[in-house]
Amino acid sequence: MNEIPKNPAQSNVFTHVIQVRWADCDPARIAYTGRIPYFALEAIDTWWDVHIGYDWFRINVDRNVGTPFVHLSVDFRSPVTPRHPLICEVRLIRLGESSVRFAVRGLQDGVLCFEGEFVEVFVEAEAHSKIPVPADIRLKLEALVTD
Amino acid sequence: MNEIPKNPAQSNVFTHVIQVRWADCDPARIAYTGRIPYFALEAIDTWWDVHIGYDWFRINVDRNVGTPFVHLSVDFRSPVTPRHPLICEVRLIRLGESSVRFAVRGLQDGVLCFEGEFVEVFVEAEAHSKIPVPADIRLKLEALVTD
Amino acid sequence: MNEIPKNPAQSNVFTHVIQVRWADCDPARIAYTGRIPYFALEAIDTWWDVHIGYDWFRINVDRNVGTPFVHLSVDFRSPVTPRHPLICEVRLIRLGESSVRFAVRGLQDGVLCFEGEFVEVFVEAEAHSKIPVPADIRLKLEALVTD
Amino acid sequence: MNEIPKNPAQSNVFTHVIQVRWADCDPARIAYTGRIPYFALEAIDTWWDVHIGYDWFRINVDRNVGTPFVHLSVDFRSPVTPRHPLICEVRLIRLGESSVRFAVRGLQDGVLCFEGEFVEVFVEAEAHSKIPVPADIRLKLEALVTD
Repeated sequence: MNEIPKNPAQSNVFTHVIQVRWADCDPARIAYTGRIPYFALEAIDTWWDVHIGYDWFRINVDRNVGTPFVHLSVDFRSPVTPRHPLICEVRLIRLGESSVRFAVRGLQDGVLCFEGEFVEVFVEAEAHSKIPVPADIRLKLEALVTD
Repeated sequence: MNEIPKNPAQSNVFTHVIQVRWADCDPARIAYTGRIPYFALEAIDTWWDVHIGYDWFRINVDRNVGTPFVHLSVDFRSPVTPRHPLICEVRLIRLGESSVRFAVRGLQDGVLCFEGEFVEVFVEAEAHSKIPVPADIRLKLEALVTD
Repeated sequence: MNEIPKNPAQSNVFTHVIQVRWADCDPARIAYTGRIPYFALEAIDTWWDVHIGYDWFRINVDRNVGTPFVHLSVDFRSPVTPRHPLICEVRLIRLGESSVRFAVRGLQDGVLCFEGEFVEVFVEAEAHSKIPVPADIRLKLEALVTD
Repeated sequence: MNEIPKNPAQSNVFTHVIQVRWADCDPARIAYTGRIPYFALEAIDTWWDVHIGYDWFRINVDRNVGTPFVHLSVDFRSPVTPRHPLICEVRLIRLGESSVRFAVRGLQDGVLCFEGEFVEVFVEAEAHSKIPVPADIRLKLEALVTD
């Protein structure tokens, strides 16, 4: 019945909005390079909270599961400033035996400002030793993987 | 004779030491992921000061030359903690028409903690428009490129 | 009649909510001491945007008016954690010839976590020289002073 | 024999030097307000390491002793920039039953940039409950109190 097909690539995009501030900017009047990974990481931490029911603080402290990063890369396309909200789009693009890979894009006023990829691995938090993704979390993650 | 050949790959490695602190660490008791790019960027800024005679502040404010980043990537090999000095090794590995690429490695107590690459482009600072590397700076950079 | 009297002390309290994150916490599993002034300053910057129509970025860049701080003090009453939203209450408590004084309180789950005072002065931004509060801004500020 | 008397007020001043960087500065081309408490706290953490033999990380993790701050105040006298080293002078000015009070001054090129006071209390780190200053630490602290 001419139903519009659901776009799987779009359906699992999570959006987190950040208000960039004076405190984030350097003398070039744009957000300092080092702040951009912070913004992307904040968006991923929020993704965890909304989709899995744990942010990094609670998954570590309450469940003794750590998710340290083993890789991040960012391409900076256009300066980030306080003049517009920073729209961070987060997608889970790969689920491995004991790792997850996210793609994050940042946009302001319709312009792509940065895009990057971020990989976390699962560890037993106290021991800092690698573990498989816990079963209940894997179940939720599987439904969220997108392209 | 029998002169020990100079190792070009080693001769242009610059070392910058950072004391990681309580303020840099998260509840996992290691330096927070987002701090690692800050450490690498601090090492690169210091490289500029020592080798070119300008840090980012003075090249921007005094010469109206900006060097924003267009790319960074970091692989995290081992946690960074306050227990040992963080030895950051910086090498200039590529000099383009209007860009420079750095490799940075971070070590603690002889263990590789992270390694990454960072690319800056030259811009006229006020206008934020791309420019070729200024001639006097290119001259210095050319002598510093390593593998 | 029987009109409920307006409470002047309450009517000019502005509330800004911050989600504290893993990135803000230290190995004691609470927000790092140095982050608390950041939170309070973020609340004040938002107060400016909402009440005066300029955040610090735009008042500096677009109007050449700077508002550097000459004083801040904070009493820490209870730890700040990621477990509850951080409610920051901002009040303008004094308007001088060329200065403003704010009181900021931070609360989580009904508990007072910190309270402090913050004083800004008005300067001509480029020259960094003190100026009286600009007339249009003074007009707005006068209506907002509370006890 | 006309020996110059030792000045007790001066003898216990500890100096910690910080290189302020581009990353620390805001669009006003000076160190951001929120960074100044970070600088002072870094100087105090270094004071602990040098004088007591524990920085905050190790006293917490290795001895289960926490020293959270209950108060800080800073007066900003002159802007801090990357143009000169920031000389931070730290003095222990009061030792209480379970607290210590530090005075910190920051100078650049002979000019006083900021001065402030910072109060820490001793707690059992895991329980976050107040304790008296541990005896071995009190012994060292007593010799360091100055005016």
